[in-house]
Amino acid sequence: MFSSYEILLGSNSPRRKELLKIMGIRFTHVNINTKETYPDSLSPIHIASYLSVLKSQQYNKKIANKQLLLTADTIVLTYSNKVLGKPKNKQSAVNMLNLLSGKKHKVITAITLTNNRKQLTKSCSTTVYFNPIKREYINFYVNNFNPIDKAGAYGIQEWIGLHFIKKIDGSYFNVVGLPTHLLKEMLQDFS
Amino acid sequence: MFSSYEILLGSNSPRRKELLKIMGIRFTHVNINTKETYPDSLSPIHIASYLSVLKSQQYNKKIANKQLLLTADTIVLTYSNKVLGKPKNKQSAVNMLNLLSGKKHKVITAITLTNNRKQLTKSCSTTVYFNPIKREYINFYVNNFNPIDKAGAYGIQEWIGLHFIKKIDGSYFNVVGLPTHLLKEMLQDFS
Repeated sequence: MFSSYEILLGSNSPRRKELLKIMGIRFTHVNINTKETYPDSLSPIHIASYLSVLKSQQYNKKIANKQLLLTADTIVLTYSNKVLGKPKNKQSAVNMLNLLSGKKHKVITAITLTNNRKQLTKSCSTTVYFNPIKREYINFYVNNFNPIDKAGAYGIQEWIGLHFIKKIDGSYFNVVGLPTHLLKEMLQDFS
Repeated sequence: MFSSYEILLGSNSPRRKELLKIMGIRFTHVNINTKETYPDSLSPIHIASYLSVLKSQQYNKKIANKQLLLTADTIVLTYSNKVLGKPKNKQSAVNMLNLLSGKKHKVITAITLTNNRKQLTKSCSTTVYFNPIKREYINFYVNNFNPIDKAGAYGIQEWIGLHFIKKIDGSYFNVVGLPTHLLKEMLQDFS
């Protein structure tokens, strides 16, 4: 379906790798480690796009003909408009999950595609509705799973998502970390 | 979390088994094969509940103390209110996917929990929005995947879902075949 480019994946997320495999998209992993900081003046809805472009800049100049670099960033925006990235430690994960418990929030993922001639960035937002989660279940999740590598400190596809997420409005795969239907559309712009 | 019962799963769906595992719910599989027919007079939104109860009736009398039988049924309701169950063959799968292409539809899953004293049935509806799918991609999916065992002839978690589903409104796991948050609530009624 999209055979004209060698896709370079500039993301370490095992969820993104798994989604690309299910899409049937072969890729080569490239190592990009960007410090995920952004200007305070940036509007929350533009943060994921900013960081997704920032990640691309670390590899930009190495992109050869017929290669296409894919970078992405996911953030969570709470009901009260607080931005959540990846938690720094278990206590920070517990605090984030307490903010999400019993409320709705937005998950925004931006995708940046870069070849040696142009760059395209688009983002996607999904609203997620959490039922209330008792403190003991938040602790159980944080102690038995790995919330540290996930924006907002949870994986929708894990124990906590199955038990406590009531509904979503938008793309499910966006919440997992890659809005696959959007990637498909963007790849068509490069074909 | 729900340790007081031995769960008997009266479903052959590998997706339902996988979701129960992620929820951390241990179960014993029991074999129930019910012909999935229903009265013509039944309103489409009640069909899944009817079939879910019908499935339970095949095992009802064998339920021992401290056992809880779980049966479920999933149907798809097209934009024009046509009911889709599992396709009979590849041609029927192609016809179903043509009906879903470029339109929204509803997925309704009903869960029935039965012990030796009472029975509870609840259902859940999710709206799914498909982008248009070209005939060649419908054929590719039907020939390379297994749509025959799935209501509406598709798996949202498969190639076709990642490429062509734009968004959903409701529970994602309901579309996979088991509304896990609803099951959690229903199990609490039995604890």
